Amino acid sequence: MSSMIPFEIEARDGAARVGELRLPRGTIRTPAFMPVGTVATVKAMMPQSVRETGADILLGNTYHLMLRPGAERIARLGGLHKFMGWPHPILTDSGGFQVMSLSQLRKLTEAGVTFQSHIDGSRHLLTPERAMVVQSLLGSDIQMVLDECPAFPVSEADAERSMLLSMRWAARSKAAFGDQPGHACFGIVQGSVYPRLRQHSALALREIGFDGYAVGGLAVGEGHAAMLEALEATMPHLPQERPRYLMGVGKPIDIVEAVLRGIDMFDCVIPTRSGRNGQAFTRMGAVNIKNARHAEDQEPIDPACGCPACRQFSRAYVHHLVRTNEILGAMLMTWHNLTYYQDLMASLRQAIRLGRVAEVAESVRAVSGGETEAGEDG
Amino acid sequence: MSSMIPFEIEARDGAARVGELRLPRGTIRTPAFMPVGTVATVKAMMPQSVRETGADILLGNTYHLMLRPGAERIARLGGLHKFMGWPHPILTDSGGFQVMSLSQLRKLTEAGVTFQSHIDGSRHLLTPERAMVVQSLLGSDIQMVLDECPAFPVSEADAERSMLLSMRWAARSKAAFGDQPGHACFGIVQGSVYPRLRQHSALALREIGFDGYAVGGLAVGEGHAAMLEALEATMPHLPQERPRYLMGVGKPIDIVEAVLRGIDMFDCVIPTRSGRNGQAFTRMGAVNIKNARHAEDQEPIDPACGCPACRQFSRAYVHHLVRTNEILGAMLMTWHNLTYYQDLMASLRQAIRLGRVAEVAESVRAVSGGETEAGEDG
Repeated sequence: MSSMIPFEIEARDGAARVGELRLPRGTIRTPAFMPVGTVATVKAMMPQSVRETGADILLGNTYHLMLRPGAERIARLGGLHKFMGWPHPILTDSGGFQVMSLSQLRKLTEAGVTFQSHIDGSRHLLTPERAMVVQSLLGSDIQMVLDECPAFPVSEADAERSMLLSMRWAARSKAAFGDQPGHACFGIVQGSVYPRLRQHSALALREIGFDGYAVGGLAVGEGHAAMLEALEATMPHLPQERPRYLMGVGKPIDIVEAVLRGIDMFDCVIPTRSGRNGQAFTRMGAVNIKNARHAEDQEPIDPACGCPACRQFSRAYVHHLVRTNEILGAMLMTWHNLTYYQDLMASLRQAIRLGRVAEVAESVRAVSGGETEAGEDG
Repeated sequence: MSSMIPFEIEARDGAARVGELRLPRGTIRTPAFMPVGTVATVKAMMPQSVRETGADILLGNTYHLMLRPGAERIARLGGLHKFMGWPHPILTDSGGFQVMSLSQLRKLTEAGVTFQSHIDGSRHLLTPERAMVVQSLLGSDIQMVLDECPAFPVSEADAERSMLLSMRWAARSKAAFGDQPGHACFGIVQGSVYPRLRQHSALALREIGFDGYAVGGLAVGEGHAAMLEALEATMPHLPQERPRYLMGVGKPIDIVEAVLRGIDMFDCVIPTRSGRNGQAFTRMGAVNIKNARHAEDQEPIDPACGCPACRQFSRAYVHHLVRTNEILGAMLMTWHNLTYYQDLMASLRQAIRLGRVAEVAESVRAVSGGETEAGEDG
């Protein structure tokens, strides 16, 4: 473990921590939010604009990239960073989650998973070893082990069988990753909502030894409260000195609650995908910009936000753009939401240093009801 | 005519001229290309990015804007410039062309045209007077008279009836425009491909008196050669000292040939629309970026281009983005094509000053065959 990636915890406030994960391509300030750059682009954003929102690291989707344009092609073109013009760190998932949710005719064996591409029907075999090779071809800075994500709900017996398979895959993934100085390999805790399984999984991963520990298999329909319970059942079994990553989460309130419980890293499509659909996150809560009440609103989306959408344009204009399906609407909404998320992470980091993280949490809780605002009403 | 907008012709090279049209919101360097900002946005572009390509003026579509978000609404919000964050000049068309091509259940009378919105089926009456009111509500710097654009082909008799109606509408439009200091009103020559009608139309407009003269009803299927013939039949009858605008044109070669014949202003959706579909204009001719031969091409779209797409990314990356339908693909292709068009206009202006416009024309003619490059091949 001599090549383990440096992670320094600089301050704590209860279980919440602020720190730095130091990779050769750049330092990740934690708690960190990683925008999702599915197929080598954060949708509707120039890479330097993503950087300017405050993002230190992106997430790339191995499943999408291995199908299009292909990992070998990206390697021939000099790697994912060069290809997409993002010289900063990139974390890649293993592809496992999308294989389960997007591909067709999956067949799962001890060896791995065989599937058909959702794009062209081509057949692929993803094994723990292949998942790591693909991520290395991409040039990923933080590589994730291949795991199986069971659907929700799942019986404890099935969750256990699945988790144990994921742990064997985790060992194979780590062996395949080998020793890549300057690159990190993260394990993924599984076990659905069952505390016993979560504990077993966390301990199994610690025995293998990873640069960081992810909590997987949540935000799959179990709900906010059950997610936090599963998280609370997991956290005590993760090493304090290593970064912890809650995969695929979430709304601002989910992120805040997870930070309070000691999570350091997040990724989620919500700010980008919801943004394109008209949902803006603001300091006053979530806003559906397509709502008719914004049609002549001269105020910006969020007066306290410094993003170009808020500095330059009115809600009325963004309303018009989103309603007419204009690309600039997707651009501005994405820009705003990613800025909101990075501002939230910055305020959490600052509050943890000051011992005031509870205040930030309270301010987000106070407006989190707004996120269920009704859709288009005329 | 005391309030006529200043237009200074600074140099000539044959019939081609370079000049400046001076509006309170900014000076338009001619020959000028106006990007099309259909519904208050140049698709996939931030307004400052459009400006940075070198655009002095945009075109807004009255038909689209009067339907969504509505001219009165834009007026209440402070006008189109403020609404869309473009403080520079805007030319608006009269809505006539889109009424003919997009709306349903049109009924044309001497009074104007009644139509149903293609969006929600609502009924509208567009008269010459209403067209000018709408453009004034938008705050347009250059307003176009309402005209009728006959389909192509059209008999000489039908073209004459239509042109004479357009001339009566032009007189009503000008009367409705009245005297708006700092704002310009342009007439539109009609007459299809018939030289006698083009001459009659041009003379009728001169008698009314306009700040500028547009050539309408071309690029509607008559072909490049017939378009140039109709243009040549029109130009001698337009006043030398006023700007001339060829509406809805065109490909680079069309623009070059029209500049050689004395046209000063252009608008066209080709760079933006074709860009989104994968056609890039370059100094080596047009390129279909979706073509498989670009899949691993590390070169930029056009090595001589200074746009962000060419400075930052490879053809391989843009190929991938356009093939996967990513918004960033539309953004980069649009950015590049608008840059190409503005660079072309700048090189034409420079060449006219140097008496070398024929050389620029030759360089564009030499590669204009490339524009028919085949589509996606794998």
